[in-house]
Amino acid sequence: MADHEIFDLGDFTLQGGATLRDCKLAYKSFGKLNAKRDNVIVYPTWYSGQHVDNEWLVGKGMALDPDKYFIVIPNMLGNGLSSSPSNTPEPYNASRFPNVTAYDNVRAQHKLMTEKFGVKTIKLVTGWSMGALQTFHWGAMFPDMVERIAPFCGSAKCSRHNFVFLEGVKAALTADAAFKEGWYEKKPERGLRAMARVYAGWGFSQSFYRQELDLNTLGYSSLEDFLVSFWEGFFLPKDANNLLTMLWTWQNGDISANELYGGDFKKALGAIKAKAYVMPGRTDLYFPPEDSEIEVGHMPNATLIPIESVWGHFAGGPGTSPVDVAFLDEKLKELLASDA
Amino acid sequence: MADHEIFDLGDFTLQGGATLRDCKLAYKSFGKLNAKRDNVIVYPTWYSGQHVDNEWLVGKGMALDPDKYFIVIPNMLGNGLSSSPSNTPEPYNASRFPNVTAYDNVRAQHKLMTEKFGVKTIKLVTGWSMGALQTFHWGAMFPDMVERIAPFCGSAKCSRHNFVFLEGVKAALTADAAFKEGWYEKKPERGLRAMARVYAGWGFSQSFYRQELDLNTLGYSSLEDFLVSFWEGFFLPKDANNLLTMLWTWQNGDISANELYGGDFKKALGAIKAKAYVMPGRTDLYFPPEDSEIEVGHMPNATLIPIESVWGHFAGGPGTSPVDVAFLDEKLKELLASDA
Repeated sequence: MADHEIFDLGDFTLQGGATLRDCKLAYKSFGKLNAKRDNVIVYPTWYSGQHVDNEWLVGKGMALDPDKYFIVIPNMLGNGLSSSPSNTPEPYNASRFPNVTAYDNVRAQHKLMTEKFGVKTIKLVTGWSMGALQTFHWGAMFPDMVERIAPFCGSAKCSRHNFVFLEGVKAALTADAAFKEGWYEKKPERGLRAMARVYAGWGFSQSFYRQELDLNTLGYSSLEDFLVSFWEGFFLPKDANNLLTMLWTWQNGDISANELYGGDFKKALGAIKAKAYVMPGRTDLYFPPEDSEIEVGHMPNATLIPIESVWGHFAGGPGTSPVDVAFLDEKLKELLASDA
Repeated sequence: MADHEIFDLGDFTLQGGATLRDCKLAYKSFGKLNAKRDNVIVYPTWYSGQHVDNEWLVGKGMALDPDKYFIVIPNMLGNGLSSSPSNTPEPYNASRFPNVTAYDNVRAQHKLMTEKFGVKTIKLVTGWSMGALQTFHWGAMFPDMVERIAPFCGSAKCSRHNFVFLEGVKAALTADAAFKEGWYEKKPERGLRAMARVYAGWGFSQSFYRQELDLNTLGYSSLEDFLVSFWEGFFLPKDANNLLTMLWTWQNGDISANELYGGDFKKALGAIKAKAYVMPGRTDLYFPPEDSEIEVGHMPNATLIPIESVWGHFAGGPGTSPVDVAFLDEKLKELLASDA
């Protein structure tokens, strides 16, 4: 019993030239599209997450209130629900699945919103991490359609340092011979566990670990228990090729890498008309606030709002830090209530 | 033609209970021990480094001036020159090499300085990174002998976050099946390269990569060239078991984990009589200044002097950032010139 819908993109040609035939975009919606079709919020998923992992920010009385808004969570290509290495038939299956850009993802989402729902304006696009990357893309690709954006703990372009961090994650996963260059029959368990351990140091901040929030707040019984239960437990169920597809999307994320902006990053940032709340986590190790500050400096209608938190990248999700969720929700309410 | 000397430690029993028979401590000295034997500087090595990798801080006219001081660089156990998995005969060879603590290392170095050189006081102990860990140990283990310490970009105890970062490094190396749990005949090349890529994101700061100092200052031709030439090139020649021995030493570093202090970290810090300049790198991702600040708060005679640098952990070494070397050298001169 799927808790989501599928939008058939048909023959979907990617930026890189490959065509995914019978390409699927999985999504879940909340609330009802009103008669004017102007109560729309789009809320893309993050690295390895699926729509269910986004739902912590949706709820009655919250900013993303289904009683008021029609909220659509589109699943990223490669995340195992939308077309992905794990669910695409031959010949584009497994490690032959083509490279997908954030631009491709947002183009697919735009087709969903316009062709399926007949939407002409979007009240808000918001997202965490790679969801923020897609949010920035929405703003740059459809500046006349998107009224507000709220990217949190993410960037409009993968920074060089962030790229290097991901190189480490990828190298750890693929160092496992069981990965077999993507043609595994049994999952590369050791590589997935190694990747999880690499990620563990990046996901939360030095202060998070110093304050032992893994034990005191998240309730794990020891640091090793946190590494095994939380981190290895998180990545082990996921498909390695899917993870690498999304990792490529992340590393190559850049709102200007398309025919609209021809690589002119400042021009692409400058083209975002939407009223923007850009919310980096103060202690995020791979999306540091300095990167957001630079981006905001080139955006005509953006405000920098750091989330003052020791939760590192997890200041922004997935609902792990209640204080930060409350802050985020309050800011989203403020943004939604304001004139765009 | 070895450019170093060997001190024979004989049967050297480690904290963990194992005895390394015919245990070797490799060291290199600069300058001459004076008649009073009071012009001594000890300068331990860092993770995977050897004495030659420390020499950038030694030179005529510099703080560590061989014309004035007798400078001894002892090689860490496990670094391939002192007793290590790679050079110890059966049965304690390869992955059966025992766990070595920083306490063991400094006890061995103390034997060298007292038994070989008859030294009773040490003017300064200084070191980068794991060299700083050993520097703190010198201060805590021999408070009446050590007049000054200058640990830079390091800590007196491995923080929980630092421990997690190293878990990622270890997992990447050992995910390679060619590692064979330490019983490899050919080196685990893929694991060493993976480890190098994981390290790359940690070693330098976000700002370093943002400013493209890998290209502009270090002269690499691309980011990928930096990852291959600098990072993979650095780790590939090293022995995997040696790297894991030193990694264990690092992860278990704690100046209070011994019979002197019984795990009372504050007591151990408080026992350091030496005049201390504690110098973290402002943007060091695994030894953040906050950790040093906490340590200094418990030390009776210590000053916190952050190195204002975007070079991350490499603010402190190994001579990579000339501006930071000049700053460090100036501070060491100031410390050496001051009353202890």
